[in-house]
Amino acid sequence: MKHIFLIGAGRSATTLIQYLLRHAIECDWHLTVGDISLALAQRKVAGHERGTAIAFDVNDADQRRDLIAKADIVVSMLPAHMHFDVARECVELGKHLTTASYISKEMRSLHEAAISKGLTLLNEIGLDPGIDHLSAMHLLDSIRAKGGHIEHFESFCGGLVAPESDDNPWNYKFTWNPRNVVLAGQGGAVKFLHNDRFKYIPYHKVFRRTEAIAIEGHGKFEGYANRDSLSYREAYGLLDAHTIYRGTLRRPGFSRAWNAFVELGATDDSYIMEGSEQMTHRDFINSFLPYSIRDSVELKVAHYLKLDQDDDLMTKLEWLGIFSNEKVGLKNATPAQILQSILEKKWSMHATDKDMIVMWHKVGHVINGQKTVTESSMVVIGDDEENTAMAKTVGLPLAIATRMILEGRITQRGVLLPVAADIYLSVLSELAINGLSFTEKTYDVEEFNT
Amino acid sequence: MKHIFLIGAGRSATTLIQYLLRHAIECDWHLTVGDISLALAQRKVAGHERGTAIAFDVNDADQRRDLIAKADIVVSMLPAHMHFDVARECVELGKHLTTASYISKEMRSLHEAAISKGLTLLNEIGLDPGIDHLSAMHLLDSIRAKGGHIEHFESFCGGLVAPESDDNPWNYKFTWNPRNVVLAGQGGAVKFLHNDRFKYIPYHKVFRRTEAIAIEGHGKFEGYANRDSLSYREAYGLLDAHTIYRGTLRRPGFSRAWNAFVELGATDDSYIMEGSEQMTHRDFINSFLPYSIRDSVELKVAHYLKLDQDDDLMTKLEWLGIFSNEKVGLKNATPAQILQSILEKKWSMHATDKDMIVMWHKVGHVINGQKTVTESSMVVIGDDEENTAMAKTVGLPLAIATRMILEGRITQRGVLLPVAADIYLSVLSELAINGLSFTEKTYDVEEFNT
Repeated sequence: MKHIFLIGAGRSATTLIQYLLRHAIECDWHLTVGDISLALAQRKVAGHERGTAIAFDVNDADQRRDLIAKADIVVSMLPAHMHFDVARECVELGKHLTTASYISKEMRSLHEAAISKGLTLLNEIGLDPGIDHLSAMHLLDSIRAKGGHIEHFESFCGGLVAPESDDNPWNYKFTWNPRNVVLAGQGGAVKFLHNDRFKYIPYHKVFRRTEAIAIEGHGKFEGYANRDSLSYREAYGLLDAHTIYRGTLRRPGFSRAWNAFVELGATDDSYIMEGSEQMTHRDFINSFLPYSIRDSVELKVAHYLKLDQDDDLMTKLEWLGIFSNEKVGLKNATPAQILQSILEKKWSMHATDKDMIVMWHKVGHVINGQKTVTESSMVVIGDDEENTAMAKTVGLPLAIATRMILEGRITQRGVLLPVAADIYLSVLSELAINGLSFTEKTYDVEEFNT
Repeated sequence: MKHIFLIGAGRSATTLIQYLLRHAIECDWHLTVGDISLALAQRKVAGHERGTAIAFDVNDADQRRDLIAKADIVVSMLPAHMHFDVARECVELGKHLTTASYISKEMRSLHEAAISKGLTLLNEIGLDPGIDHLSAMHLLDSIRAKGGHIEHFESFCGGLVAPESDDNPWNYKFTWNPRNVVLAGQGGAVKFLHNDRFKYIPYHKVFRRTEAIAIEGHGKFEGYANRDSLSYREAYGLLDAHTIYRGTLRRPGFSRAWNAFVELGATDDSYIMEGSEQMTHRDFINSFLPYSIRDSVELKVAHYLKLDQDDDLMTKLEWLGIFSNEKVGLKNATPAQILQSILEKKWSMHATDKDMIVMWHKVGHVINGQKTVTESSMVVIGDDEENTAMAKTVGLPLAIATRMILEGRITQRGVLLPVAADIYLSVLSELAINGLSFTEKTYDVEEFNT
């Protein structure tokens, strides 16, 4: 019997745990689920005969070492910055590891040691990063196999609310970590490549430089640039592509409205605001506006952002309750923390709401001088509150890859991205069986860039 | 004979060195001027019988210790972050110290040790910080002495080009460290107090929230907010003032035009641009704009910044040569470094140009319910290329304070700001003798804030 030690039983782990338990008898596995909350781990294991739920604190070095030592593979759903202690011990103790997180510098430093011990530390095998790598590499390799030369690459992904649960003027709700949504785009200028020209966008313009995207059967979206468009240039074999652009999807109008908060300075996470506990929503917004003895906060916002009084952006802002006299009620909070708490009052999912994941690639290639575009898209709707589209799309690829390693079907060693054909072909075909598949359309063009 | 060891013979040290040499015989001093450039130190000492010029490297610990040990007082004109080693050794070896720099955390940590050794480490005794403290405290204390209660405090300072040398559409030239001008406003949100409300301005809005200021006989100015408006709240005794605002002065229109660079992202110092060496000015600006197969960089800038084609901001930008095909010629440079090099081609002072320092305070007080405003301003024009207004206004207060310490006229010990009456009264009166004085005007108002 093989032992799997899974760390973290939160929202994104539901489908992952279900998959591993569903195949536990057939594959002769035992799954131990550790979470700081025993109750949460127990609820997810649900008394399965091949499952054990335990209270687990990653900072308890003895417990951590014991549990890793007993496992054949470790699946870490910890926050990205907490993986390293686990990864280091996996290498020491000779265990494989899978995660859905970006490869950090520390993680990468284990590459040689993992190879020499015959271990696979497979990362970025969730949704984004994860399915984006699998599907992009599949598409790129297929085109290359036909003799196409890739000149243009765009890739977007977004976690949204499903159309049937979309009942607010932002066409948006928090379907995963709200803090990441509030801080999106911060931490340095965006960099991408457009027709061989390096382009840079400062944070306060990221949400004003969007691209309109339509996906048949699912309507219109808009994409804003991710900071890291060029980081996979080499891994994807795109060093001679002319355009590389990666981004995040929202429904049209979201970014322009979100930019109101950026312009105000309300997404800043670098300082504590004075008196945040006693502050109302209205006071919060007013802190970013010029003092006036007579003008309303509403008019000052409209003027500051150069908006007409009847601009629908004003409707969006009013709907969020940012002008209300409700208390913020957070002590020693940053603007970003206060904004998040205001947004959570309105953008939280109801028990019956469903989420939606949208992924979209646009690849331009040339064969014999003919320029052709392939658009490839995947849309996944959540089943319910527990089995969200996010949980499915993050959990399934991670579960499938974990199984492949246990079954000896992934033989590459070291700290890996899932960009090799033997990985993406197997994972994508099993995802398709589980209803997660891509739709392609292809058409010829005169120019990739206009 | 007392020994003064002065470190740094750069542009701002000219007047300082002249003053100390001029009084050297009468006061029985010897002045040693150390600079990394021996030639520069020699030129400034100019063979004076009471002066010695030496090549001095602050990183040479032995030389540093030797020279400090021989001195009675050290005057450090080093960049702010390089003071600490000198300050620490001054305390160890029992020497006084004066600087024109902001008190750093490290500097502050020497306070108790300096007191116990009977030493004065007087900082922020240049122009800004320096004369701003002296003149503000003099004004505030005078009003308090008459029974006035201070409710409103504004203080601005700017290094500008003198009217007779002002020959460009920006009404601006670099009269001190250009890098500080390019990076102005960065590093965190602006915070100030306006009618008891804390107000915050994000970086990309700092240059759009200016205040119009007129000074009789000198025309109009505008002020943008400094990041640190509240840092002297306690030192100035302003804990119960309703409005506190500190800022930087420019000629009207500068800030709106400068904001074009902020909006583009051209002042970012956090990343290296690809291919900066081969880049033209035009390429540089185009890197921040959307790709277009047909549109000109000029039109893209106008559109991005929502400018009419005949907006005088476009004239300002064109005058700077930012659309030219001239090479940047800097290797591995950040946007801020490239922008600085482009600006230096146009904004450098000619040999015959004169600079101008403008300082302005606006203080509102109440006596028996009557609200009164006092405006106090100082305008200093440079004599020539060497004896600039900047050198005079930075160097004279530092020189005078150094003399006062040597003569035993400053008895306060520890790490000090020049806010005590015995310091500001003496320094201000000697500044006035040297032509650096303030003009006041007073008028009654209904409200301080409108």
